[in-house]
Amino acid sequence: MNKNSSNTMALAPNTSNKRETVCIFGTGDFGRALGRKMIQSGYPVVFGSRSTQTSSLIPKGAEVFSHAEAAQKAAIIILAIQRQHYNFLIPLAEILRGKVLVDVSNNLKINQYPESNAEYLAQLVPGAKVVKAFNTVSAWALQSGTLDASRQVFVCGDDMEAKQMVMDIVRALGLTPVDQGSLLAAQEIENYPLQLFPMWKFPILLSLALTAFFFFYCLARNVIYPYVYENKDFSFFIAISIPNRICPIVALILLALVYLPGVLAAIIQLYRGTKYRRFPDWLDKWMLCRKQLGLVALAFASLHVLYTLVIPIRSFVRWRLGSQIISQALNNKTEPLNTTNAWLSDSYLALGILGFFLFVLLGITSLPSVSNNVNWREFQFVQSKLGYLTLILCTAHTLVYGGNRFLSPSSYRWYLPNAYMLSLIFPCIVLVVKFVLILPCLDKPLTRIRQGWERNPQYSE
Amino acid sequence: MNKNSSNTMALAPNTSNKRETVCIFGTGDFGRALGRKMIQSGYPVVFGSRSTQTSSLIPKGAEVFSHAEAAQKAAIIILAIQRQHYNFLIPLAEILRGKVLVDVSNNLKINQYPESNAEYLAQLVPGAKVVKAFNTVSAWALQSGTLDASRQVFVCGDDMEAKQMVMDIVRALGLTPVDQGSLLAAQEIENYPLQLFPMWKFPILLSLALTAFFFFYCLARNVIYPYVYENKDFSFFIAISIPNRICPIVALILLALVYLPGVLAAIIQLYRGTKYRRFPDWLDKWMLCRKQLGLVALAFASLHVLYTLVIPIRSFVRWRLGSQIISQALNNKTEPLNTTNAWLSDSYLALGILGFFLFVLLGITSLPSVSNNVNWREFQFVQSKLGYLTLILCTAHTLVYGGNRFLSPSSYRWYLPNAYMLSLIFPCIVLVVKFVLILPCLDKPLTRIRQGWERNPQYSE
Amino acid sequence: MNKNSSNTMALAPNTSNKRETVCIFGTGDFGRALGRKMIQSGYPVVFGSRSTQTSSLIPKGAEVFSHAEAAQKAAIIILAIQRQHYNFLIPLAEILRGKVLVDVSNNLKINQYPESNAEYLAQLVPGAKVVKAFNTVSAWALQSGTLDASRQVFVCGDDMEAKQMVMDIVRALGLTPVDQGSLLAAQEIENYPLQLFPMWKFPILLSLALTAFFFFYCLARNVIYPYVYENKDFSFFIAISIPNRICPIVALILLALVYLPGVLAAIIQLYRGTKYRRFPDWLDKWMLCRKQLGLVALAFASLHVLYTLVIPIRSFVRWRLGSQIISQALNNKTEPLNTTNAWLSDSYLALGILGFFLFVLLGITSLPSVSNNVNWREFQFVQSKLGYLTLILCTAHTLVYGGNRFLSPSSYRWYLPNAYMLSLIFPCIVLVVKFVLILPCLDKPLTRIRQGWERNPQYSE
Repeated sequence: MNKNSSNTMALAPNTSNKRETVCIFGTGDFGRALGRKMIQSGYPVVFGSRSTQTSSLIPKGAEVFSHAEAAQKAAIIILAIQRQHYNFLIPLAEILRGKVLVDVSNNLKINQYPESNAEYLAQLVPGAKVVKAFNTVSAWALQSGTLDASRQVFVCGDDMEAKQMVMDIVRALGLTPVDQGSLLAAQEIENYPLQLFPMWKFPILLSLALTAFFFFYCLARNVIYPYVYENKDFSFFIAISIPNRICPIVALILLALVYLPGVLAAIIQLYRGTKYRRFPDWLDKWMLCRKQLGLVALAFASLHVLYTLVIPIRSFVRWRLGSQIISQALNNKTEPLNTTNAWLSDSYLALGILGFFLFVLLGITSLPSVSNNVNWREFQFVQSKLGYLTLILCTAHTLVYGGNRFLSPSSYRWYLPNAYMLSLIFPCIVLVVKFVLILPCLDKPLTRIRQGWERNPQYSE
Repeated sequence: MNKNSSNTMALAPNTSNKRETVCIFGTGDFGRALGRKMIQSGYPVVFGSRSTQTSSLIPKGAEVFSHAEAAQKAAIIILAIQRQHYNFLIPLAEILRGKVLVDVSNNLKINQYPESNAEYLAQLVPGAKVVKAFNTVSAWALQSGTLDASRQVFVCGDDMEAKQMVMDIVRALGLTPVDQGSLLAAQEIENYPLQLFPMWKFPILLSLALTAFFFFYCLARNVIYPYVYENKDFSFFIAISIPNRICPIVALILLALVYLPGVLAAIIQLYRGTKYRRFPDWLDKWMLCRKQLGLVALAFASLHVLYTLVIPIRSFVRWRLGSQIISQALNNKTEPLNTTNAWLSDSYLALGILGFFLFVLLGITSLPSVSNNVNWREFQFVQSKLGYLTLILCTAHTLVYGGNRFLSPSSYRWYLPNAYMLSLIFPCIVLVVKFVLILPCLDKPLTRIRQGWERNPQYSE
Repeated sequence: MNKNSSNTMALAPNTSNKRETVCIFGTGDFGRALGRKMIQSGYPVVFGSRSTQTSSLIPKGAEVFSHAEAAQKAAIIILAIQRQHYNFLIPLAEILRGKVLVDVSNNLKINQYPESNAEYLAQLVPGAKVVKAFNTVSAWALQSGTLDASRQVFVCGDDMEAKQMVMDIVRALGLTPVDQGSLLAAQEIENYPLQLFPMWKFPILLSLALTAFFFFYCLARNVIYPYVYENKDFSFFIAISIPNRICPIVALILLALVYLPGVLAAIIQLYRGTKYRRFPDWLDKWMLCRKQLGLVALAFASLHVLYTLVIPIRSFVRWRLGSQIISQALNNKTEPLNTTNAWLSDSYLALGILGFFLFVLLGITSLPSVSNNVNWREFQFVQSKLGYLTLILCTAHTLVYGGNRFLSPSSYRWYLPNAYMLSLIFPCIVLVVKFVLILPCLDKPLTRIRQGWERNPQYSE
């Protein structure tokens, strides 16, 4: 009981070929699936159940006993039952003393109970060593063997030896145990399988809000205005033209918002003269979702690229090109090549291509398996140097696209500027402030602050 | 001998700096490469060989002895020889008693022998503890250190302590041991390095068959028909136009085939009233290769995107556009903008872009390192919700592309409908059946069945 | 002291819930961040410092003592101080005898000192067991918990037990320990965080040199020549037209350079008649950076694709198309379809699409998490078979693009051939030599040599 598997072997080599019996309380779906998997991995398994008659669903090779009997046969007991039935364990307290109790339960809602199921179990059966594990694995995955999603099994518990025993079982089942520390982590582990992309919530909501705002903005300027004043039906702009305005705008704003918190943090540190005070909460949260913001921005930028590349295939664009050429032909005149236009058109396209290319590179380096293979210096280099270069290129792309239209009054329909002008506000602020911050007179004290120097040491908490 | 490395240290601290001697039988390529790597990692290495004279190829620091002598010097013996020479071990049985014998051998064909090499070895030398390992690593990789492919070393064996010792060595060499269970797994481990994308075989063969069928179908309709009836030479359609018809068709059919087995499984479960009976074998196999089917579909969709985007650069398309414009100019008439056409053209392009975008997202989440970082709820959400949305968008893209051509008799050359009409059959079936299945009157019993409820409990096996 | 954590538990179960005290020398940024993280993970932490007064910055729960006192309270001492201050440890030698000393230091330059900091420490305090660890983790990452970059902690040391103890701590902090062997590896571990993509240096420098050369080459031919002889201003070609010539050329040359060393190695092996002699150093280095060469080539190919796809949107291209059509319309003639041109244009585009598609596939399989999931046979198949197919397709794409322009004298401005002709030299050499090498008369001896056969066994070293 007090030996983990490797010690068992070292001290008692004659038993080294046999794995220890594991007891499972509960013959429901998950209990049976786990039992079957354990038998396949060479563990003798006994089930503890209210009705001790062996059902045809119990995996072959397992025996069913009453809870008390089954518990006595094993050092590890896996509780595959729901929290509301845990009460039946109280009378078994004496039998469970010193045993390892593995809590695999999940809840239906995040933070459903004040304390985690595993902590509740530890209070109910104080003599047992409670370990939280297996709650992130689904019965279906165990059964079918198709572990396409994560093979990680989060494990936590106060007793290190008990945790080690459970982690050995996890490894033997072909899964990857991840030690999450003491039983205090159980709440988080129980919430984990209920989460649906929590880090992505804010970036996605923000991008949807921006999308909605710019959709109506562009609808007013580009569809309703010509319909009202020129009686032209451009409603089909909703399919491609307007999305192709919204996407680059949202992408550029989100990209600027990735770098804005870093700039704000630098200003706060400079103002406070120390790095040893916490940032405001909103800034901390913002900084933690920068990667997700950047990836959502990349998604919008990719859509912009696709929308742009199909332009020449669009029926409307072909019609417009044809009618321009025909009217020139009928007027018997040929326009000469406008070199300035050629320069503007080519350089805005080239800036966009290079910006998008670097953006995709940034996205690739944020893949978990790639970022795991770079050191901190390389990661910083990519995310900071290449990141700012991307922002500069994309901002320049938008500025050159505007060209000399900024001053033309025809760009202001209903006094509304072109949407892309609005998208330039945040990137320009970030770039200007960043440029100021890298001036030596500000960069030097900032570097010293970040190395631990304090202007007014009494400020420290 | 009965201590694994960590225990050795704990119990005998004065030896803690030394690794245990390892013996290698066989001085061939693999044996020498493994020996060199082990010496680099701090293991004393002795070779067992028929001729005991040290060759210049033996790595520096290793000694060569007769098999019997070498075996006596180490607790672990690595057999770097081929199965057909294993017989020489029989006379050494007494010396090998209790030793760990590591079988690294590979075969030339899958399932070449009735039992795995490691099991054969265990029968030959019953007193030894046989462990299968290292067969997935190549001599060249060990030598050059360029472990670009997998660093995983599959290990199996009946003796857990022996397996632990081998896994410690694997770790010390900078590789990742993966415990595959008892020696029964040796057959699978020996087959592993001989496999060539086994899960991809069916999806790729299916896609090639579909490609061949639709190639000849389109050839007949689009090249041979105009040649026969209109005497026009459109043979150059073979390069881009026909591939660009085949790719979207195959992609859409394969995408529908990803979701068809799930729908079939639901119907079978509803009909049987239980989830506790196995699906037919073909359905099980189909369900296991859905990821590969989806990725092949994504490859075809990507080709379709590339083929589509180069359309305006094609010499033929430029010629056609030019001659249309010229004929309009010569006839002195300008066509007005056809808003319906603009709507159809733009919305079919927009649907295609959004469908492809979601498809790529699905592909990215199926990367091993990404899917390892999501929980089951997130994985299900992406693969099921986003997956169906992708299927709906791609089907709608094809339907709108068709537009009102479905009814036009000119679309039926030789009574053959346009190829894309054929591609709509499977997606429409899947979507209609899925729609029926999410009606409450069917969804409720299905959910209950999937939670373990049975209509006729006697059905259970 | 001589027990690692798992043994502690096994032998002394009553202490199994408590982690061992850890001592940290140094209360700087990194020391404090590490201390805070360890306290969170359940380790009692004491700090050793010159001034023993508890500052407000010391993490809650930790105590501060003099160096000597602190060292006596723990079996593991983490040295979070810089190498130049190590001298103060000499008087503490007696107290440190038998303790585990963890060196976390980093240098400012690669190979700054003749011996690594950890080896220097081991010389200073010969009685202690020195382990190198944690130097790849940043204080900021520990503090903020945002371990987006690598979670790998490289560990090395001569004492295996001490190393095991440190690796247990690493695991408990939620990081991944990677055993790098003996203390000899410390130099490499200390250099690791200072590296900036060392494997990428040569491929990127080479590609930049090629880019510069071809930029001026194309500038001369396509901008300066027409300006001098035809007085036309094509300076805007610098934005897109010239990059779109440079990118495919550099991509094709780099792709050929990926396969050239393999071909050279085969020739050397055939000539020497043995595989047991080392290749020249430059060839070894070249072979080791083939993956990086290939990925840089893929980056250039991707840029080429983007530059090509925006062609029809360019203002210059639209103007040229329009003026061609207008001049035809004004001359009242319509050109018939040129089938040969249609064939050439379509097949060069189709070859390019297929080549790029396979190239992207190669790139995806080189992602760490993907290549970790394939066996050697599959990896070889993809990188060799698919790789050569990619090279063939891309070379054919360039050849067909040239079409019959190779012989036209107008292609030779200032006696300079078109840039793409230069790009064909390396790929054609590689393909021709490879074709010769797979002739049976050369392939057979080569295969035998690679299986270990030697023509003149005396050649072996």
